Amino acid sequence: MVRLRASMSARAKAIEGMIDRLLPRVEGGEARLIDAMRYATLGGGKRLRGYMVAEVASLFGVAPEGADRVAASVEMLHAYSLVHDDLPAMDDDDLRRGQPSTHRKFDEATAILAGDALQTMSFDILANPLTHASADVRINLVRALAEASGAAGMVGGQMIDMEGEGRALSLDEVARLHALKTGCLIRYSAEAGAILGQASDDVRKRISAYGRDLGAAFQIADDVLDATASAEELGKTAGKDEAAGKSTYVALLGVDGAAGEARRVAGQALSHIDIFGPEADRLRDLVHYVVERRN
Amino acid sequence: MVRLRASMSARAKAIEGMIDRLLPRVEGGEARLIDAMRYATLGGGKRLRGYMVAEVASLFGVAPEGADRVAASVEMLHAYSLVHDDLPAMDDDDLRRGQPSTHRKFDEATAILAGDALQTMSFDILANPLTHASADVRINLVRALAEASGAAGMVGGQMIDMEGEGRALSLDEVARLHALKTGCLIRYSAEAGAILGQASDDVRKRISAYGRDLGAAFQIADDVLDATASAEELGKTAGKDEAAGKSTYVALLGVDGAAGEARRVAGQALSHIDIFGPEADRLRDLVHYVVERRN
Repeated sequence: MVRLRASMSARAKAIEGMIDRLLPRVEGGEARLIDAMRYATLGGGKRLRGYMVAEVASLFGVAPEGADRVAASVEMLHAYSLVHDDLPAMDDDDLRRGQPSTHRKFDEATAILAGDALQTMSFDILANPLTHASADVRINLVRALAEASGAAGMVGGQMIDMEGEGRALSLDEVARLHALKTGCLIRYSAEAGAILGQASDDVRKRISAYGRDLGAAFQIADDVLDATASAEELGKTAGKDEAAGKSTYVALLGVDGAAGEARRVAGQALSHIDIFGPEADRLRDLVHYVVERRN
Repeated sequence: MVRLRASMSARAKAIEGMIDRLLPRVEGGEARLIDAMRYATLGGGKRLRGYMVAEVASLFGVAPEGADRVAASVEMLHAYSLVHDDLPAMDDDDLRRGQPSTHRKFDEATAILAGDALQTMSFDILANPLTHASADVRINLVRALAEASGAAGMVGGQMIDMEGEGRALSLDEVARLHALKTGCLIRYSAEAGAILGQASDDVRKRISAYGRDLGAAFQIADDVLDATASAEELGKTAGKDEAAGKSTYVALLGVDGAAGEARRVAGQALSHIDIFGPEADRLRDLVHYVVERRN
């Protein structure tokens, strides 16, 4: 796990540097927009999604430069969703990674626009020839990201989440909500590495299933963390799910039951990549990491 | 002009039908999201941007089916920008095309998410092979749309617009604001037709300049309309620019001066397409239409 943390932190630094270069400061009336986009994307964080892109791509010998751009793209997409999620009309969250959320640091209008422009930019980066990928590969990345993040993916999940507040959801409904809201983008992150690496259909499907199950384990573990960790550990308001009357794995299965379910799904994630040798060990460590993390 | 109106209204119907097919109603928690996306995109309207895509594409013999998809894509992008622009934290507008704006009809959270998902979908449609275009053409469309609508285009313009409220802008600043905020997407709409038609670089540049100047004329005429037309004619609140302390062409040049400037820029738009024969007559009529319309 020490090995994984070092690898993740090195990759996070590379991705952070890439985002910094992709979003240079400007003068004039747009300065505030770019500043807010930088604030929302350069605040640190684990870069789990970007790391998955880069690690999977490296399995197929993809050069780090192109992979880091695709990693920066998914981190921008993720950041846009957090900025909009934190807005007063949505989850109304004042803190993100222990810092004021973007609309608190700037203002609501700027946060809405910064989120909008980050989404645009994530597609722009994928389409750019600087990813060092063919037009076919780039189009496949654009399509996969759009599918994972749009109305039938992440945003659809956010809508279900808003609709479900204060209403008791079944275990199946909670699983579907999470699969859409956070799972799709994590699954995409793994898949994007396989698309970049021009993996065969069969291998791409396995990588995609790995990402799907890792994402599910991540979210169940997140519910457990929200119920058990402090705001200091989380870097965000703790116990928010219960306060908002949200149905969670913990509400349905209890803390121990949810922790057990996270381990079961994690095991499933590992099984999908059993065709690989030690070159996939960091992807295996990552599965253990997401269920054992404390923040 | 009667001929143009008939052509525009037939095309608007085709684009509306395409959007309807691209956004089928669903059951479950996402139903509200899709309903809001449909509400924001299917409320009628002139479909100026979609019409430009289709008319320019037809100059190059592109089949209507692919062009209508690209037209639907730009109308969705445009609709997302209107939905977010109308939000309380932005322009706080209760009316759009004479109907409640999306956040008034649904709620703020739903409007934010519907805008987000419409943006995603506009890229998704461009990337889809059903546009009947090669991967290269589709990637070029994605890149052109991202450039026109992101931080260096439409959203950047919206930020400048928010920043400029209550402050006196110079004529150059107003021109730049409009070029970004509304001009870029109108220029893209013309350019998208040329990309679909695989026009030569020189022809693509002319079409792009035509779109740029048509967009500028459109916006100057819009300022004149805002100052002179009634809410009933506009289908939205009138006189909002002045009330918000926004710098406009009318504030800087007076109503007559602004109307004259619109005609001058319109003439410039026409000059870029003088290489075409009568097959471009509707594109010429369109220039007259945008400066003479009353809504």
